[in-house]
Amino acid sequence: MRRVVLLTDFGTADGYAAAMAAVVAGAAPDALIEPATHDVPPGDVFGAALALSRYATRYPPGTVHLVVVDPGVGTERRAIAVEVDGRLFVAPDNGVLTLVLRDGGPARIVQLPDGGAASATFHGRDVFAPAAGRLAAGEGLEELGTPVTDPVLLTVPEPARQEEGIYGEVLQVDRYGNLITNIPGDWLEGEAEVWIGFARVGAVRRTYGDVAAGEPVALIGSLGLLELSVRNGRAADRLSAGRGAPVFVDRPA
Amino acid sequence: MRRVVLLTDFGTADGYAAAMAAVVAGAAPDALIEPATHDVPPGDVFGAALALSRYATRYPPGTVHLVVVDPGVGTERRAIAVEVDGRLFVAPDNGVLTLVLRDGGPARIVQLPDGGAASATFHGRDVFAPAAGRLAAGEGLEELGTPVTDPVLLTVPEPARQEEGIYGEVLQVDRYGNLITNIPGDWLEGEAEVWIGFARVGAVRRTYGDVAAGEPVALIGSLGLLELSVRNGRAADRLSAGRGAPVFVDRPA
Amino acid sequence: MRRVVLLTDFGTADGYAAAMAAVVAGAAPDALIEPATHDVPPGDVFGAALALSRYATRYPPGTVHLVVVDPGVGTERRAIAVEVDGRLFVAPDNGVLTLVLRDGGPARIVQLPDGGAASATFHGRDVFAPAAGRLAAGEGLEELGTPVTDPVLLTVPEPARQEEGIYGEVLQVDRYGNLITNIPGDWLEGEAEVWIGFARVGAVRRTYGDVAAGEPVALIGSLGLLELSVRNGRAADRLSAGRGAPVFVDRPA
Repeated sequence: MRRVVLLTDFGTADGYAAAMAAVVAGAAPDALIEPATHDVPPGDVFGAALALSRYATRYPPGTVHLVVVDPGVGTERRAIAVEVDGRLFVAPDNGVLTLVLRDGGPARIVQLPDGGAASATFHGRDVFAPAAGRLAAGEGLEELGTPVTDPVLLTVPEPARQEEGIYGEVLQVDRYGNLITNIPGDWLEGEAEVWIGFARVGAVRRTYGDVAAGEPVALIGSLGLLELSVRNGRAADRLSAGRGAPVFVDRPA
Repeated sequence: MRRVVLLTDFGTADGYAAAMAAVVAGAAPDALIEPATHDVPPGDVFGAALALSRYATRYPPGTVHLVVVDPGVGTERRAIAVEVDGRLFVAPDNGVLTLVLRDGGPARIVQLPDGGAASATFHGRDVFAPAAGRLAAGEGLEELGTPVTDPVLLTVPEPARQEEGIYGEVLQVDRYGNLITNIPGDWLEGEAEVWIGFARVGAVRRTYGDVAAGEPVALIGSLGLLELSVRNGRAADRLSAGRGAPVFVDRPA
Repeated sequence: MRRVVLLTDFGTADGYAAAMAAVVAGAAPDALIEPATHDVPPGDVFGAALALSRYATRYPPGTVHLVVVDPGVGTERRAIAVEVDGRLFVAPDNGVLTLVLRDGGPARIVQLPDGGAASATFHGRDVFAPAAGRLAAGEGLEELGTPVTDPVLLTVPEPARQEEGIYGEVLQVDRYGNLITNIPGDWLEGEAEVWIGFARVGAVRRTYGDVAAGEPVALIGSLGLLELSVRNGRAADRLSAGRGAPVFVDRPA
């Protein structure tokens, strides 16, 4: 019994997400179909890539991930299916799998035929869901299409280690207003002072409880990245910062 | 193992949707219970009918659809269970199944008893979910109630073919701001010019990629209906139009 | 095959909720994992307790409820697993199980180890989900931790019966704008006049259909509590009231 996990930007109210799930259910009647989210902001491919990286590898091998954030539907972008570390992914080839490919082992990738009968605007239902259903029903990746070796990868903003400190930026604001940066937690051994723009957040702490309610705090978040938070508050509002805001970690001499 | 698919306007935060799912699980412990959506705008029966029409027939036969958008709870409206083309539906008899009944084969319909012990305000949990659970557990439709032959049907705005062109209207604005009209795509063979109100959208194209980003485009959407979209934008905003807006398709002589 | 039902305030867009579900799936590959809700307002422990009380006991015995509204993550609050009436709960010990414990039979409670390897900010994934997965895989409650006898309980505002009438308050505003009070329906036999603040709502009716559209109505809601509603409208807006608003039931002499 396979698990098929869905990530889209469809919302649910219009019935598009259910149409996609229905096609999977038709192809793989015993599949467990579970929504990861349908609430990615419309067209936010990088946000989807980041969300996916939070959970994809935590599902057991054999799980099929159907990932459709597809602002390029109706253009020449390819449709792909991917196997990485025993997990399967079906998605548009627009970079939404960038972090899965970057952080996983060797990948096998095939290009899906775009399906002559497919609607020109809803490949989630007409191209991606049938492919996910076939994988969930036990077909092999190779049966779905022809090999691809050059998947589209997004440019992920990279942090930089300089002598005076570490330069990074905010990758994402989460639901709680936490500012997730691109600075790896394991770069932060020892003393450090964290700044965002011209605002000093201070030392890296272990958890929210290490500061008073309403106070900003820098800590290593659940992705292993430096995060800026406010205990029982919203760092994005308190620090007036969002995606792309510059972060600096000072190393005192 | 039956699949029970839920559509409501309950939202999820209050626990009402889960209470309904729980009753299904109690009656049919092995059922796969999947949300299609709980985010229909409160009381929007027609919007629910349209969403349902996007996915209901794509689920395999045997699927039980539990559909509760029920602004008339606590009035005399009936509760019904329906079988169409091997799919099962449980819903208030308020027209929410209009498109399923219009587009499907012959239907068998029964009226559910309103349940003396039922709460007077939450038939989703106390009337509809028990019936869906019994269907999911394998009971026949006839065991649930007495036959009905006059289900309530909504009046769906019909498009009109005139000599000068086709008159239609917008049925719905979806999450992406697309304007879904009631004009069937197969009425649009050959040359055509699409107008919404006094704004000219132009020829019918195949897909978004046929216009530049930010430009409006008319195309045949995934329901087989004429849609007005803006590539990487929101047609509802760009064209200042919503449900009921008049659409005209001019046929050049 | 166990059912694991999720309640959080995570939203879904960031992938946190899916990370938690993924860990359950890893520990109990056959489990049916169903979201009750991820849309509790961030940090609203009492709202979560109320939502949970609407559905927890309606799921069949054996169901595992994973309940993570956890504003105190990273402080000294305990993590617990609980069995009440054959149902299993895994949650922070912050009062979110108050109503389940108040309304159920004798409870067995154990404290979960906080897990040396756990992240300091995401116990939903690193502490609670592994425990729920072990329960779903069939392990006994005792194997998860050491007994606890003093769970944290929230103070639930209690209604008061006086000679002149009943004093209560609004516990919650639901999605429809209904005002859910703390006054039990079975205190309301016979004639009664309901007031909220200085506004007279009138007699207790059976259902919405007993008043005209747009009119306020007092009735016994689906939780068995007095509710104030507006037929096809929002009582919270119409009566300008929210959580904590005083409600009085007058008993005419």
